[in-house]
Amino acid sequence: MKKYNFNAGPSILPDVVLQKASEAIFDFNGTGLSILSISHRTKPFEDVLAEAKALFKELLNIPDGYSIYFVGGGASTQFFHIPANFLGKKAAYVNTGVWTKKAIKEAKYYGEVNVIASSEDRNFCYIPKGFEIPTDCDYLYTCHNNTIYGTEYKEDIDSPIPHICDMSSDILSCPVDVSKYALIYGGAQKNLAPAGVTFVIVRDDMLDKIVRELPSMMNAKLHVENNSMLNTPPVFPIYVMLETLRWMKAQGGLQTIYEQNCRKAAMLYAEIDRNKLFRGTVDKEDRSNMNICFVMNPEYESLAAEFLAFATERDIVGIKGHRLVGGFRASCYNALPIEHVEYLVQTMQEFEKMHA
Amino acid sequence: MKKYNFNAGPSILPDVVLQKASEAIFDFNGTGLSILSISHRTKPFEDVLAEAKALFKELLNIPDGYSIYFVGGGASTQFFHIPANFLGKKAAYVNTGVWTKKAIKEAKYYGEVNVIASSEDRNFCYIPKGFEIPTDCDYLYTCHNNTIYGTEYKEDIDSPIPHICDMSSDILSCPVDVSKYALIYGGAQKNLAPAGVTFVIVRDDMLDKIVRELPSMMNAKLHVENNSMLNTPPVFPIYVMLETLRWMKAQGGLQTIYEQNCRKAAMLYAEIDRNKLFRGTVDKEDRSNMNICFVMNPEYESLAAEFLAFATERDIVGIKGHRLVGGFRASCYNALPIEHVEYLVQTMQEFEKMHA
Repeated sequence: MKKYNFNAGPSILPDVVLQKASEAIFDFNGTGLSILSISHRTKPFEDVLAEAKALFKELLNIPDGYSIYFVGGGASTQFFHIPANFLGKKAAYVNTGVWTKKAIKEAKYYGEVNVIASSEDRNFCYIPKGFEIPTDCDYLYTCHNNTIYGTEYKEDIDSPIPHICDMSSDILSCPVDVSKYALIYGGAQKNLAPAGVTFVIVRDDMLDKIVRELPSMMNAKLHVENNSMLNTPPVFPIYVMLETLRWMKAQGGLQTIYEQNCRKAAMLYAEIDRNKLFRGTVDKEDRSNMNICFVMNPEYESLAAEFLAFATERDIVGIKGHRLVGGFRASCYNALPIEHVEYLVQTMQEFEKMHA
Repeated sequence: MKKYNFNAGPSILPDVVLQKASEAIFDFNGTGLSILSISHRTKPFEDVLAEAKALFKELLNIPDGYSIYFVGGGASTQFFHIPANFLGKKAAYVNTGVWTKKAIKEAKYYGEVNVIASSEDRNFCYIPKGFEIPTDCDYLYTCHNNTIYGTEYKEDIDSPIPHICDMSSDILSCPVDVSKYALIYGGAQKNLAPAGVTFVIVRDDMLDKIVRELPSMMNAKLHVENNSMLNTPPVFPIYVMLETLRWMKAQGGLQTIYEQNCRKAAMLYAEIDRNKLFRGTVDKEDRSNMNICFVMNPEYESLAAEFLAFATERDIVGIKGHRLVGGFRASCYNALPIEHVEYLVQTMQEFEKMHA
């Protein structure tokens, strides 16, 4: 029962990772215990944590002077933890869709929010550029890839103030110059793990800039000092993340994965641009490699439901577009084989033959 | 490679639950997709959530007028969410160990804490009783079972103010009269699930008593209104919890499980009391069914390391006591078969023969 899984998240993981996860449920690393039933304060799990951190650092080329921690609660929790830690008076946010809007809303509990740029005027179908970053703000906040709208920053912004970035949906899908960021975080349930674990990569000097007294679980410095063990961490999602990182390294590392992602995205966008029935929804220069959004061309709009049914019939899963954009969204995360993109392209071509 | 898993948490889960979890990693409920790779906003996962809530309600006999939600972040997150939501001016806390101390610390960010009773005078080896509950406090806070010290409340307190209770380590191990509580919560990684999901059972009138404006993810009412989907929930831990609840029901429900837990605990405490080498650390009337703490008798103290090695040799895992109590702790959660307790008792008897 082969499925072609284009889910936006939680989403496809490599087959070998599923295999390892399943094995660890019966016997984790020769301990005779299930990964679901071990204490987190044991050598075997400390090894998992250490290797996950080391591989994350190696694959993303994180320079010295940064710390990584993993925590439960989801990226939505960071929407308020970040301003709680770092928003003393005012912060600059770039609004590129639903997730930055939510982050802006939470930030307002802690101080003033200056929305310095927005692409809301065209339903977030592009990434704002050329905006000025005010130096009187505590930090700049952006969302690197906008899962719902299918836009993605292609350059690492040079910011005069600390740059905090939500990379939930494209972390480790493309190289980034980590040294240009003060903090990178995200939910891991797209490219790395099942739902339930959030990664935070933070430049160490930020930990001395926490602006208020905070409950322990909100305090970024305490999470770093306690090596992701301030409380019981989400053991299984972290273990699955480790297996995904191992898989990435075995594939040849981030550059290889990135080139593969570019090939997959180019192939699908080429078909969207060629096929008479469809059109992309995003300005070409800002198109996401991860979340590829498209709609029916106006003259074929009535065929939308039929195309979805046709694709579903062919075991394609998860391509219904978000209601805020409509149409279709094919999420092509790291683990999605290029053959699955080819299969979707063929499906679009067959549907075109039937109707155009 | 059979192990006898007495871990304090994360801890033993039923074999059939591990089997189901492993199967769902390859094919969740006939979807052709892994439970790790499905969207949470789909019918099959909505069904998981609905059934988990319904079974929780049925097994714990939760009356109408209560809501349940599941969220990531761990019980430690609730240490500050609870006072953030409900501590307007002053709250009454009973201090029974490390976990209430932490809860007290976090509550102080939000208001005054009145520690109305404590067992700290004797290293938390008993449950305070007969304390007066001040009616000028917003709520009473207790921890139902103290994992580190092995104490457990045996009665549901009659409280004139809303009673909020941490049941992380004995939820669904014994009947409780839910109607006497305003809010019951806990990390699920002892009796119900792997680490990564927290349950909150809240009386609905409490949701109209939230005392301050809060970030969305801290707001109990928003979690209820959004049916545990305020953000992406920890899908896999919730699924495993559902399988554990199904297992509990198949065993005959909470009363059967409770009777089994009583038999297991009675057997081990009887051996601790009988065996010349050991003694219990907790006042008899307050002994936990879940976490059974014991130490060497004074004249045999030098044998502690040897007993641990002897037990480890015999594939017994997780019985080293917490450093704050020393000695040994055998956690006997729901899923631990009575035969494993018998095996531990035999091991203690054999060790006694060698040394007494």
